[in-house]
Amino acid sequence: MIYLKVEIKVGLKEGITDPEGLNIKKSLKLLSFDNVENVEVKRSYVIEISGKDEKKIREDVDMMCKKLLINPVIHDYEVEMIK
Amino acid sequence: MIYLKVEIKVGLKEGITDPEGLNIKKSLKLLSFDNVENVEVKRSYVIEISGKDEKKIREDVDMMCKKLLINPVIHDYEVEMIK
Repeated sequence: MIYLKVEIKVGLKEGITDPEGLNIKKSLKLLSFDNVENVEVKRSYVIEISGKDEKKIREDVDMMCKKLLINPVIHDYEVEMIK
Repeated sequence: MIYLKVEIKVGLKEGITDPEGLNIKKSLKLLSFDNVENVEVKRSYVIEISGKDEKKIREDVDMMCKKLLINPVIHDYEVEMIK
């Protein structure tokens, strides 16, 4: 049995408009940050999880993403084992 | 003049309750993921920005965080230069 900290980073797929990013860019321009070209917003879930081994944990994490955390139509995700 | 991609990762300070993380943990338990010990939710802003040099860009990014992106009472943030 091992314990791991896993980071799941969720962003929008290429070609999907990111209204939040666009609004933040606009607000930064209003605050005179004219050197900002683009803003993308992502969410991360840092999960502490236990399991038989790293492979099993990775499978569980993929299942969590599919069942709860992401919408496969618009989201891409990356999983990183932190420790 | 250089262009950089910068990631700003915003999370809650230690000791601040993360209701979203707690709810996700609860939902994962309901989906039978009983091996989840803790869930933390963070936000990332990936910003493409230009500037005189890395130092100036870093200063601009800190200023953006203070003026718009974070609430210093509850948030901690890290800045990472991606490329």
